[in-house]
Amino acid sequence: MDTPEHAAALGALRTALGDALSVDQIDLAPLTADKSGHDSHSLPLALVTARSIADVQATMRIATEFQLPVVPRGAGTGLAGGAVASAGQLVLSTLAMNRILEVSVADELAVVEPGIINADLNAELAALGLWFVPDPASKAISTVGGNIATNAGGLLCAKYGVTREAVLGLKLVLADGRMLHLGHRSVKGVTGLDLTALVIGSEGTLGVIVEATVKLRPLRTGAVATIAAYFPDVTTAASASAAITAAAIRPAAMELLDSRSLHSIDRFLGVNLAGRGETLLLVQTDGAASEAEAASALRIITGLGGDADITHDAAAGEELFAIRRAFHPALEAEGSVLIEDIAVPRSALPAMFAAIVEIEERYGIPIPTVAHAGDGNLHPNFVYTPGPAGEVPEIIWRAADDMFRVALALGGTLSGEHGIGILKRRWLADELGADQVALQDQIRAVFDPLGILNPGKG
Amino acid sequence: MDTPEHAAALGALRTALGDALSVDQIDLAPLTADKSGHDSHSLPLALVTARSIADVQATMRIATEFQLPVVPRGAGTGLAGGAVASAGQLVLSTLAMNRILEVSVADELAVVEPGIINADLNAELAALGLWFVPDPASKAISTVGGNIATNAGGLLCAKYGVTREAVLGLKLVLADGRMLHLGHRSVKGVTGLDLTALVIGSEGTLGVIVEATVKLRPLRTGAVATIAAYFPDVTTAASASAAITAAAIRPAAMELLDSRSLHSIDRFLGVNLAGRGETLLLVQTDGAASEAEAASALRIITGLGGDADITHDAAAGEELFAIRRAFHPALEAEGSVLIEDIAVPRSALPAMFAAIVEIEERYGIPIPTVAHAGDGNLHPNFVYTPGPAGEVPEIIWRAADDMFRVALALGGTLSGEHGIGILKRRWLADELGADQVALQDQIRAVFDPLGILNPGKG
Ligand SMILES: Cc1cc2nc3c(=O)[nH]c(=O)nc-3n(C[C@H](O)[C@H](O)[C@H](O)COP(=O)(O)OP(=O)(O)OC[C@H]3O[C@@H](n4cnc5c(N)ncnc54)[C@H](O)[C@@H]3O)c2cc1C
Ligand SMILES: Cc1cc2nc3c(=O)[nH]c(=O)nc-3n(C[C@H](O)[C@H](O)[C@H](O)COP(=O)(O)OP(=O)(O)OC[C@H]3O[C@@H](n4cnc5c(N)ncnc54)[C@H](O)[C@@H]3O)c2cc1C
Repeated sequence: MDTPEHAAALGALRTALGDALSVDQIDLAPLTADKSGHDSHSLPLALVTARSIADVQATMRIATEFQLPVVPRGAGTGLAGGAVASAGQLVLSTLAMNRILEVSVADELAVVEPGIINADLNAELAALGLWFVPDPASKAISTVGGNIATNAGGLLCAKYGVTREAVLGLKLVLADGRMLHLGHRSVKGVTGLDLTALVIGSEGTLGVIVEATVKLRPLRTGAVATIAAYFPDVTTAASASAAITAAAIRPAAMELLDSRSLHSIDRFLGVNLAGRGETLLLVQTDGAASEAEAASALRIITGLGGDADITHDAAAGEELFAIRRAFHPALEAEGSVLIEDIAVPRSALPAMFAAIVEIEERYGIPIPTVAHAGDGNLHPNFVYTPGPAGEVPEIIWRAADDMFRVALALGGTLSGEHGIGILKRRWLADELGADQVALQDQIRAVFDPLGILNPGKG
Repeated sequence: MDTPEHAAALGALRTALGDALSVDQIDLAPLTADKSGHDSHSLPLALVTARSIADVQATMRIATEFQLPVVPRGAGTGLAGGAVASAGQLVLSTLAMNRILEVSVADELAVVEPGIINADLNAELAALGLWFVPDPASKAISTVGGNIATNAGGLLCAKYGVTREAVLGLKLVLADGRMLHLGHRSVKGVTGLDLTALVIGSEGTLGVIVEATVKLRPLRTGAVATIAAYFPDVTTAASASAAITAAAIRPAAMELLDSRSLHSIDRFLGVNLAGRGETLLLVQTDGAASEAEAASALRIITGLGGDADITHDAAAGEELFAIRRAFHPALEAEGSVLIEDIAVPRSALPAMFAAIVEIEERYGIPIPTVAHAGDGNLHPNFVYTPGPAGEVPEIIWRAADDMFRVALALGGTLSGEHGIGILKRRWLADELGADQVALQDQIRAVFDPLGILNPGKG
């Protein structure tokens, strides 16, 4: 595969980066995939494991010199193929840049390198009574840099906000190796265009995030109440979640599991939750109003015919949420899974669930679906038998295509939190329109005139 | 002043827009100024008072055809000169596009035209138990479009967020008249670059906001507690506010008035507040934890030697905050005022206040200063005697220059919420760096290749 230019580029990288460069098969093999199920089956040219900002800058300068495509990579837990590399590409990993540079208790901020694992940061912060809010279900395995590059959401973001709301400033290395300081240490600031916000969720296409000043909150303390409510059907459960929001209750987390999800979990755990009702709504309230909010939510649930348990014990609450956490392992036990990620206005949740059932029937494909009901973000999961090269069969994409169209027609979006990556590129113009896609490409070209940063992604 | 091109452009505008176009002196006169004190003293070419998206598109198509600079304008309450127009420019007012197109209680969102006054929208929403959070002190006179174009803050944003957090989607008319749909109706979404966030705070330089889908919250209900605490000096008061934040208390509003401010208010209202202490810290808590938070705040205040009143009566609380609201009228009674707007990390508030006192002494200029203490946003007010053409004397700008440098050195920013407009353009590179300024200009050029949208601003 190697061209003379590649050899020259590798030589330059070796000279500049020494051990930080690897062309070892063992190191390159995992880089053709992330957790989306998509695999390029095509080894990239090399891996740079950056140890410092200087390493990142040197890499990008050489990449620019040799017009080498660069794929920034954190922990590789992405679900859209954003970090998937292939032949001729250089993978630039920020995973080893994982230090906490500063924590300011007084200013409720931390300055961190991008490679730190979300949960590791939070473990350090907890000792100081502080909390970095973004809580993707992958928090134990994903990096803060990856969370920022994807604008990660999670279970708590309806109440506490997504990653965008938790970043004050960034250091960004551009395609040509120059570094920009974006944002500030103050909570507020409106000087110039908000490039910090633009970079959040840009999936490695605008630059490499090499440092982040993140906004912290006081750790949640006090009582937590947790409700597990079973409903006969998903429409009623979705109405209950809508009614809870409409009643001005702000659950910390509100998760909805449809009938197929519940049956999968039943099979996996050897239990019979679906025996109590085909759909499960989990609601957790926290803070000073926790008890009052839980009581109101319970009244709404019971009023709509839900069969509910409530606990004020934190550990018992965790056990109820363990049902939700069993969802992915349960599906993985049944086959290959494409984890989808649409979002719709909350009021459209029942319509979206109904459309998914229709699509299941039309294509004869099971699509167990869970939702972050508090913010209208659904994760329909397509369980499938992979094609000969391990790929997602085209029928799955056709079903997904139908589903995306419904989400857009309902005023929603292709991706609530996982991003576009490689996998959703072909639907981008359906949501944004051709004019906006062209304009976004031109903005990317301002940051990266040669188009070497994560080409074909985002 | 009129060139043949101008005459031709006006002819085209007249044909396309009819009555919506005015070249009447009476209409043009107010457009040379906003509320910043800056006046171009140079009448613009014409005013278009758009009645519809079609009017805005027609205006921009003609402006592109004739390469006519366009100044978007809301209510003209800006404090940075962003809406100030001058000779040869066309003012495009969205003030008359002021309808509420939709309110969805279930989805907690509203779709509005840009010209609606913030308080008018909120009056409609209150009847439905809903609230559009951004609360600039100008909410009774400024437009939602202007709030979005400046990413307006306010008293409540430390707890409830700035305008950026309250916008889901925008319709934006580009310089050439095309319209983009940015964002979505769902709460979450990460499809493509976040252009909604980029447009928020872009001060009319990327396009004309013609519609906004804004995120609402349930109206605040329940108890409110208000504390007025007098301290002998601003350093102790700032320490108290920092200690309140550090104790994980989240006041709805926390305002700090320094000694000069308090004395001005005393003179204006004919009272003697400064007799109780040279500095005033106002703290208001709300929500379920309101009483508990107020009690904790009071303990902190008293522990630091503050002399405090507390009330749990909402009306009495409003009276205490009326002291804060008397600040601007009090200053205006004393001379011309340049309202500045820096922000620093909260822990740097005492250092920033100390630097302001030093600058006062160095230049012999009084700089009464109030701060949104909860988010480190200070409004130092320069009281001055205008120059012959009504302009801000150069010595004031030299003093401001010293002040900006300190704010930046402390990790802060030139503008917490008012924007850059015309008035702070010369300091932009000091904060952003030359590379970033150039990149921002290139991004603007993607939206507006001819550079006709609010040139020289932002
Ligand atoms: C079990 C499981 C549960 C998950 N749950 C959630 C969830 O609840 N919410 C959610 O939002 N996501 C979830 N995800 C998806 C994924 O974990 C997130 O997208 C996460 O933010 C990715 O972080 P990462 O470090 O693994 O990034 P990677 O996968 O390595 O990269 C993701 C994207 O970010 C870019 N990138 C990474 N680092 C940088 C950098 N330093 N500079 C520039 N670009 C960079 C990459 O190029 C790529 O485009 C889940 C994934 C799994 C496997
Ligand atoms: C007494 C007083 C108190 C204030 N308090 C605060 C405060 O607490 N917090 C705060 O943030 N600000 C405050 N301000 C400043 C000002 O009110 C805000 O900046 C407000 O958001 C401006 O709204 P406007 O409709 O008056 O906009 P304008 O002044 O007309 O315009 C402001 C900027 O927005 C652009 N713009 C306006 N409409 C559009 C549109 N439709 N499309 C594109 N661009 C547009 C203009 O080009 C200009 O750059 C205060 C002002 C006054 C006079």
